[in-house]
Amino acid sequence: MVGEVPGLLWSPVSSVSHAPVVLMGHGGGLHKKTPALAARARDVVTTWGFHVVAIDAPGHGDRERSAEDDRARADLRQAHTAGDAERFEMVSVRYTASLAERAIHEWQTTLDALQELPEIGTEAPIGYGGGISMGTAIGIPLTAIEPRITAAIFGGGFFVNEALMEAARQITVPIQFLLPWDDEYVDRYSSLALFDAFASKEKTLHANPGDHRSVRWIGLDNEFLARHLTRAATAPA
Amino acid sequence: MVGEVPGLLWSPVSSVSHAPVVLMGHGGGLHKKTPALAARARDVVTTWGFHVVAIDAPGHGDRERSAEDDRARADLRQAHTAGDAERFEMVSVRYTASLAERAIHEWQTTLDALQELPEIGTEAPIGYGGGISMGTAIGIPLTAIEPRITAAIFGGGFFVNEALMEAARQITVPIQFLLPWDDEYVDRYSSLALFDAFASKEKTLHANPGDHRSVRWIGLDNEFLARHLTRAATAPA
Repeated sequence: MVGEVPGLLWSPVSSVSHAPVVLMGHGGGLHKKTPALAARARDVVTTWGFHVVAIDAPGHGDRERSAEDDRARADLRQAHTAGDAERFEMVSVRYTASLAERAIHEWQTTLDALQELPEIGTEAPIGYGGGISMGTAIGIPLTAIEPRITAAIFGGGFFVNEALMEAARQITVPIQFLLPWDDEYVDRYSSLALFDAFASKEKTLHANPGDHRSVRWIGLDNEFLARHLTRAATAPA
Repeated sequence: MVGEVPGLLWSPVSSVSHAPVVLMGHGGGLHKKTPALAARARDVVTTWGFHVVAIDAPGHGDRERSAEDDRARADLRQAHTAGDAERFEMVSVRYTASLAERAIHEWQTTLDALQELPEIGTEAPIGYGGGISMGTAIGIPLTAIEPRITAAIFGGGFFVNEALMEAARQITVPIQFLLPWDDEYVDRYSSLALFDAFASKEKTLHANPGDHRSVRWIGLDNEFLARHLTRAATAPA
């Protein structure tokens, strides 16, 4: 719990001090210990000996929903039922931007709190392992303004607006970008434009068939964060 | 040497019988033992114990150039020097299609000859590890009509025409597709459309910054062929 934000920290049973930390965002409508996220967290902790942190996004998981959250969710459901793609996109973009604005500040407060922990401190390299969809809509503006994040996994499956494109242009750290090739709602070309926008010299796009729920990731580079965060950890200060 | 086509077969020092075979295409203007191809071949042979075969494409390497080859190369050079992108594309598409037509038949004859070898026979699983550019312009129509090929690596970096799109739609085997994100000549969206066209249930797109000469592949799934060809080898007949 950081301030009012419920969070979870997974740590290895025994770890080197200042082991890397991975911030894991969750998708829209999900929460900090949703099964896929928990499985990825466990994998990172047991395979690499890193710490993993997840927090509930505003209006998600154990957090209270504001009137705005309720209204946005009702609007999204309604647009979905009515098959009104234009309205669905408009509400989704606006609501996600509002969530991201709040969530970025919460992630930064979380990072401050983590760095107070003696086993993490200010020396632990930090990566964003955001998953696709809402986790990326939050992770991109966060990574753009947060110099403590030195590598990030992002992905498609959500509507990209100009503010996100602009944030992507500010990002120079290594990026792994996961694209579900056949999203039901989101034009893949907007995700490809987003990938193109990152200023990072090292960036990898990885696409597999399926939408953001059905996609099965095959041939993924599972060592991406380990490679970059471990390199950061051993690089001279 | 198969008929009039000079070729190379790399084989492991000791191999299980009927070990998988990888057909390696080379890029335009290159040849069967160009350094990058030879390095990949060595890697496949030593890491996986597979056989690797490369043949010179028509008018390439140790083969005589026809009047058509000489004319096409001169035209390409001239269009390149003049900065005439439209003419460069037109000549390139026409010449590559003509090469592919000849090369497909030569690969099939090569496959027939390989299957006569006792250590290969008709049981060895066969993959195409074509690299990008011309290797793919040949590999796609070859894989579309050649049921002996059960997995293929293709890539972007060349001009895609409707015949190639149509061939891609016939392909159902697992595909790994490598896209140099910033090709000097070729619009990346034509390569993305080609990836989209494959009928394969299992296909992975992998993109890194750079054009088809400068790209540095990072986070690539190097076990793609091994996974599919070994699975094929152990599957019941």
